Amino acid sequence: MKKIYLDYAAATPMAPEVVKAMEPYFEEIFYNPSATYLSGQKAKAALDSARLQVAHWLGAKPSEIVFTAGGTEANNLAIHGVMNQFPDANIVISGLEHDSVRQPASLYNCKTCKVNDSGFIDTEDLLKKIDDQTVLISIMQANNEIGTIQPIKEISAMVRKIQSQRLKNDNLLPIYLHVDAAQAANYLDLHVARLGVDMLSVNGGKIYGPKQSGALFVKAGTQIAPVIFGGHQEHGLRSGTPNVASDIGFAKALDVAQKMRQTEIVRLQKLQNQFIKELKTKISNLQINGSLKNRLPNNINVTIDGIDNEKVLIQLDEAEIMAASGSACGASSEEPSKVLKAIGLNDQQIKSTLRFTMGRQTTESEITKTVQILSELIK
Amino acid sequence: MKKIYLDYAAATPMAPEVVKAMEPYFEEIFYNPSATYLSGQKAKAALDSARLQVAHWLGAKPSEIVFTAGGTEANNLAIHGVMNQFPDANIVISGLEHDSVRQPASLYNCKTCKVNDSGFIDTEDLLKKIDDQTVLISIMQANNEIGTIQPIKEISAMVRKIQSQRLKNDNLLPIYLHVDAAQAANYLDLHVARLGVDMLSVNGGKIYGPKQSGALFVKAGTQIAPVIFGGHQEHGLRSGTPNVASDIGFAKALDVAQKMRQTEIVRLQKLQNQFIKELKTKISNLQINGSLKNRLPNNINVTIDGIDNEKVLIQLDEAEIMAASGSACGASSEEPSKVLKAIGLNDQQIKSTLRFTMGRQTTESEITKTVQILSELIK
Repeated sequence: MKKIYLDYAAATPMAPEVVKAMEPYFEEIFYNPSATYLSGQKAKAALDSARLQVAHWLGAKPSEIVFTAGGTEANNLAIHGVMNQFPDANIVISGLEHDSVRQPASLYNCKTCKVNDSGFIDTEDLLKKIDDQTVLISIMQANNEIGTIQPIKEISAMVRKIQSQRLKNDNLLPIYLHVDAAQAANYLDLHVARLGVDMLSVNGGKIYGPKQSGALFVKAGTQIAPVIFGGHQEHGLRSGTPNVASDIGFAKALDVAQKMRQTEIVRLQKLQNQFIKELKTKISNLQINGSLKNRLPNNINVTIDGIDNEKVLIQLDEAEIMAASGSACGASSEEPSKVLKAIGLNDQQIKSTLRFTMGRQTTESEITKTVQILSELIK
Repeated sequence: MKKIYLDYAAATPMAPEVVKAMEPYFEEIFYNPSATYLSGQKAKAALDSARLQVAHWLGAKPSEIVFTAGGTEANNLAIHGVMNQFPDANIVISGLEHDSVRQPASLYNCKTCKVNDSGFIDTEDLLKKIDDQTVLISIMQANNEIGTIQPIKEISAMVRKIQSQRLKNDNLLPIYLHVDAAQAANYLDLHVARLGVDMLSVNGGKIYGPKQSGALFVKAGTQIAPVIFGGHQEHGLRSGTPNVASDIGFAKALDVAQKMRQTEIVRLQKLQNQFIKELKTKISNLQINGSLKNRLPNNINVTIDGIDNEKVLIQLDEAEIMAASGSACGASSEEPSKVLKAIGLNDQQIKSTLRFTMGRQTTESEITKTVQILSELIK
């Protein structure tokens, strides 16, 4: 029997189209794209076309796309890259951010804005936290644990308003909005002008692309410095011989994901509704965490009174069902989920919480089977 | 006719064994190695075994191996990671270093030691440059442009002596030796205890592994902090969901390279001798740059009086021969090679210099043909 994988937020298999797109660049067009001979320029042309493909989906210029080795690196570049330019400034993040935002931000003067019980940013509190010395705001587009989708357009309108107020007050400090779209790219519009963002991180490893592939969109004119220095690749913002194969794989993955996102949303929302309905039918004393309205269609986060999630996850694994208790990065740590804490769950509730994240291979019967087995083993 | 590739120092094709080793991790064992279920642990076991393989060739503990996205990132981690810990300290590098050492080092209090005309570090000058505030010395094991192999053991013995002197003088500042082995791993012993180094960078993209794969060896006890923060992967020194496929490919590449290095040295030294002999026979007014004794067996760096290297490289390319004038990273820059400058060449000589770097696919007849064509087109 095929195992049931319900941890797509932690990792996705590479799509067959992605592997196929990469293969010519392993042994044939392996050349250094900085080389001047024709074959090197062939590698460069492939890299350029991958950059154009990413720029297309982000509504950006190719010169605004910096390929990075993954989403974590993209987030680090956005935060260190800006904050290092403004030693007296501060950064505001939300209580829902991933460790790849939270940790680098904590090295600077960092304020954390509140979120409400449904997992939405408290925009009033965000407004309060932003002061005359705030240079960067980093908010994730959709949460990796509870799937909540933030009102990025509303937040960016707010930031623009502050920016123009500043100019009126002769405060020349810029104010940038960075958005971590690691979990969003399979399902949401990433068009940076429509969203109104200055920087946006995309992660190939979560969209059926290669692991440690990704990009940071950096709006032209943003005052940012590199984190990794050397041969001045990636417009000087990420040195190192480009991984042409991986960048092509990432661009292809983004292309496939964005092209199929509307149909995937419809399909997964149906599965999500089924999942919740069956959970509620078969299991009592449960609560779905995060908004049911503005939510990624592939995410189910549920607290079931009295269960020990570690034990349940092992039992599910024995039944060949793979799920999680929270972010994979935190899986080995003893600390309770900061996201669940931020939306008001206590330690006991956090220890009774499971995350199921669906993906391209998830079927109706897998959901039914999962809920059936789960309900039996927690009886 | 097959093109002749003589730019292996810029990029290597992935070895078939490497591609084969990676493939199962694209679509099958794609899991996040931090996940707790069995399949996640399978990915983790594969990552652990790759780490062990790298540790084996470096004579290190697996806990001392940090997988990075490439050699540039490894060098940046070594330099920023240490220098950020010691704000008042300085770093000493050589005039031969790659931009991925030179650029990050230049952000700190940095001194550059002289090299002689043959491309060897002037160890007396190095000793003079090291003072009571020197915390880091970064020297490349073998140069990417002229192939010179540095006397790392001699330098490390010197550093150890300074370290014990310091302890006697109650100077508790550590002094670390970092070695960039990006170009060395195909041909040289990387055993860190035999070399006596504290940190060592290896680059997968130069040893027939995936681009932007690599590792930094960090000796246990080294005071170093991460550059990229987040989920605490790689012993907390490089966050981000690991690229298991790429790490496995890198480990396999290192394994293959180190196993075949003795036979490759013999084969390539023969080709190197042939190359130089034929050059000298067919072309007058030339000089081979760098030592002929302690030199990578695959490197030929030659200044031919009166030629314009850019023009010659284009003509060679038209004749389906790929070569370089220096490091690929610098290929698009107008600045003359810093390495050739350091060994005493003037701008005119630098503009008349060509680099040929051979590799696994290079044959005797390719060398003969290359010299033949080169001699004709510069007549």
